Amino acid sequence: MLTYLFEYLEKQYQLPGATLFQFLTFRAAITVLLSLLISTIFGKRIINFLRRKQVGETVRNLGLEGQDQKAGTPTMGGVIIILATLIPVLLFARLDNIYIILLIVSTLWMGLIGFTDDYIKIFKKDKQGLKGRFKVLGQVGLGIIVGATLFFHPEVTIIEELKQANAEEVVVSGPAIAEFDKAHKSTKTTIPFFKNNEFDYADLVGWIGEGARDHAWLLFIPIVILIVTAVSNGANLTDGIDGLAAGSSAIIAITLGLFAWVSGNLIFADYLNIMFIPQAGEITIFIAAFVGGLVGFLWYNTYPAQVFMGDTGSLTIGGIIAVIAIAIRKEWLIPLLCGIFLAENLSVVLQVSYFKYTKKKYGEGRRIFKMSPLHHHYQKLGYHESKIVNRFWIVGIMLAILTVVTLKIR
Amino acid sequence: MLTYLFEYLEKQYQLPGATLFQFLTFRAAITVLLSLLISTIFGKRIINFLRRKQVGETVRNLGLEGQDQKAGTPTMGGVIIILATLIPVLLFARLDNIYIILLIVSTLWMGLIGFTDDYIKIFKKDKQGLKGRFKVLGQVGLGIIVGATLFFHPEVTIIEELKQANAEEVVVSGPAIAEFDKAHKSTKTTIPFFKNNEFDYADLVGWIGEGARDHAWLLFIPIVILIVTAVSNGANLTDGIDGLAAGSSAIIAITLGLFAWVSGNLIFADYLNIMFIPQAGEITIFIAAFVGGLVGFLWYNTYPAQVFMGDTGSLTIGGIIAVIAIAIRKEWLIPLLCGIFLAENLSVVLQVSYFKYTKKKYGEGRRIFKMSPLHHHYQKLGYHESKIVNRFWIVGIMLAILTVVTLKIR
Repeated sequence: MLTYLFEYLEKQYQLPGATLFQFLTFRAAITVLLSLLISTIFGKRIINFLRRKQVGETVRNLGLEGQDQKAGTPTMGGVIIILATLIPVLLFARLDNIYIILLIVSTLWMGLIGFTDDYIKIFKKDKQGLKGRFKVLGQVGLGIIVGATLFFHPEVTIIEELKQANAEEVVVSGPAIAEFDKAHKSTKTTIPFFKNNEFDYADLVGWIGEGARDHAWLLFIPIVILIVTAVSNGANLTDGIDGLAAGSSAIIAITLGLFAWVSGNLIFADYLNIMFIPQAGEITIFIAAFVGGLVGFLWYNTYPAQVFMGDTGSLTIGGIIAVIAIAIRKEWLIPLLCGIFLAENLSVVLQVSYFKYTKKKYGEGRRIFKMSPLHHHYQKLGYHESKIVNRFWIVGIMLAILTVVTLKIR
Repeated sequence: MLTYLFEYLEKQYQLPGATLFQFLTFRAAITVLLSLLISTIFGKRIINFLRRKQVGETVRNLGLEGQDQKAGTPTMGGVIIILATLIPVLLFARLDNIYIILLIVSTLWMGLIGFTDDYIKIFKKDKQGLKGRFKVLGQVGLGIIVGATLFFHPEVTIIEELKQANAEEVVVSGPAIAEFDKAHKSTKTTIPFFKNNEFDYADLVGWIGEGARDHAWLLFIPIVILIVTAVSNGANLTDGIDGLAAGSSAIIAITLGLFAWVSGNLIFADYLNIMFIPQAGEITIFIAAFVGGLVGFLWYNTYPAQVFMGDTGSLTIGGIIAVIAIAIRKEWLIPLLCGIFLAENLSVVLQVSYFKYTKKKYGEGRRIFKMSPLHHHYQKLGYHESKIVNRFWIVGIMLAILTVVTLKIR
């Protein structure tokens, strides 16, 4: 909201400094700082409040060293991340931007589901929490909202470079100054190793015949549902040892921030040959707030943790990451960029399936990992919690670099 | 060296894929990957070798919890960082680039000083190590080499945008296409908050009169000496708890990598209004290798550490950081970007001075911190080593973001 105020001040009174608010990078910096202040200073108070209200996590007996120390640590710390994200966004982002609206809705939606889940666990003393059915229903619901908005909303567009038809013309008219199409709706997305790194969802439904393009949402929306569900569950499973989910998510979010910034800047998008998405630059502001919230939360969540994020946190950050990735049309980079989430997800699926399979076949269930999700496997192997987390972060950073690089290889 | 090979292969046989080596980002990615492989796989062997040779650190009795666990951990792990930096650089960087040559020399030079220091400490059982005098002499020597090379070498140049003298002309000739000067020698450097973010060392010696510009080295070289000494000592002091120096340095190096990449790219440098420095892009390759080495080392150095870097590591990484910053003319950003090093340095200086001052005045020495360098102060306050390190990293990341942002504020 302050953006409008400063624009007004600048127009009316030429207030010095007000022009700074025009710079996306400057706004992003201010946003990160405010978000950090909220999550660290305000966060401390929230943690104390949660502790007083005895919002503690019932620590399951996993036979892990040091698990008893964790009893009494307050959970639901995800509210810190949510507040530290939404407050700066409301102040510094353009609230008429469709992507910002979508992200605010997603945050509140997933936050509510996670909060309900935590609330039932803690106060109803029901360890199951929100029934799986409702959780999935919530994720599917968000998928439909996000998928439909991105598919049908008129302001969700891309701008493509016009291919220069005539090589001679280029020579005559001097150095190649790229020409651009008008903004138009498109079902194109980014896929590495493909021609131009692009892929069109509509191509997949082409066999329906004439007008297939209009029905591509039949394919697009289920894919969005799948991604939202997978990523938010991945973040949920990753959230098992101190600082792992928050740190990994911060790394992912910074990478997405880079993509969002480049995607929204015609000069950079053109030079780096990344899809130009009008209005997408504004997502950078949301991401800045999100990163600030995650990092500020990490300040207290890093080993030994003073607070846990709970499902309020993990489901929400998973949802936010998924929606951002889809909005900037980088959803097919998720398996690589969110490789930690994927590995944690897979470790559970593999462990459970293999156990069931061997139980059926040999009469006794066997295990692939000493324990799943993956991080517990390493704990059982005797690695220190702190070392596991730092190494997972390092892997996360490497995956992020790889993700950025894949786009350059064509 | 492989760069030349691939260039040859491409010219002669149009080998598919060989063109990829032209892309700086692709080479940087390959470099990071190789460097990571060396530091993790090869690093493990080096650690085992050091342990067998009993290259253990004599842990001083600081009255800190858990210090006994550290006895027996091998030191001199800095060799891992040095090898993981130099090998990929020799393979993938252009070895005729003046900045690359300068950085290779600096790495070997500081590595040798650090190694001698560690060697004396461990095998001569002399806790003092290399006498302070020789250490400083080594740092001053490097400062002179670096300062003189950057000042006098003909290939160390910058390219500046020609100011458009006539506004009307711009209107007539269409959109402003920036015009650029030829590459020329310059004593300009980057300082935030100044006009154009630029400052000319030669201006400071202007009072000497005619021809002062040619004698600006009288000022420049001492400044370089000061920076090299301060940063390498800073890194040295920071290296006190598991993962702190390596992690903080990786954050600083990534930021410098960003600056180097932008500084060497005319389009980006112009758009972001950052000084364009021909050939400086190649420094990105060195930094990529350096970051890979630091991160791979961190894999083993993170709490609980399996290896320490020793002075072989800390003096070298400090020296490398200083030289890179000076080469890309961002040395005045060091106090902010390397704020962790500065704080550690200051904590020691303040502690010692205050102790001496109060001893003289009141007869008994008093302390500002419970212990210096700063990280030990927090240990004494009861914070877990791992938490201190992670929080210092967070502060380091914030300082890095602030550093990038200051350049946008004018």
